Amino acid sequence: MKTINIKQKLESFSDHWHPRQIASVDDMQVILAKIKGEFVWHAHEEEDELFQVIRGTLYMKFRDRTEVVREGEIIVVPKGVEHCPATKNDEEVHLLLFEKKSTSHTGNVEHELSRSSYPKI
Amino acid sequence: MKTINIKQKLESFSDHWHPRQIASVDDMQVILAKIKGEFVWHAHEEEDELFQVIRGTLYMKFRDRTEVVREGEIIVVPKGVEHCPATKNDEEVHLLLFEKKSTSHTGNVEHELSRSSYPKI
Repeated sequence: MKTINIKQKLESFSDHWHPRQIASVDDMQVILAKIKGEFVWHAHEEEDELFQVIRGTLYMKFRDRTEVVREGEIIVVPKGVEHCPATKNDEEVHLLLFEKKSTSHTGNVEHELSRSSYPKI
Repeated sequence: MKTINIKQKLESFSDHWHPRQIASVDDMQVILAKIKGEFVWHAHEEEDELFQVIRGTLYMKFRDRTEVVREGEIIVVPKGVEHCPATKNDEEVHLLLFEKKSTSHTGNVEHELSRSSYPKI
């Protein structure tokens, strides 16, 4: 029951595509990530996934279009939908995600960027 | 799969202590609320509840202390813990909450401020 400062937590790590867990809400978790460039196309068959942009501009690619998500905006990717988070012009983008603790990082895809767990910070 | 702008959504209503639903993530919901003054002491026996401050300063009262939550900060109230959200000096505070769809507004307490459902916006 302690106040959590999102920006302070973001200052505590610097690597990309490696989420940290900052809070737990029932069977869901709140994670933070710094991203840069393009991730991996994947889908989560069983879980929705919410992205909130804390800094920068997220380009959420879907197979038929790209959705632009700016600071202060959120997007929910429904279960089963292929997506690929990306940034442009070498911008480092800071994200907060809400998702089930069971959600795997790269969903239905194994990749060298896949993380099996997220450190708590 | 549309981008949701939190501040634009907040501009679309003005009443206090009457949350609106802006997104759904599995069995959880994202709701926005404008608050001013002091709410009702209550607990949610079965659900944790996450508060993120979008504007202003939230004073989250617990029976043994008050936690100050500023813009860009979050706090999770665990299930079963009595709490009372409040603001000071007549400030209107804007909140984003993340909680189960089953979470009732004033938990174990019936009150004239209790809302049985939150309109989608």
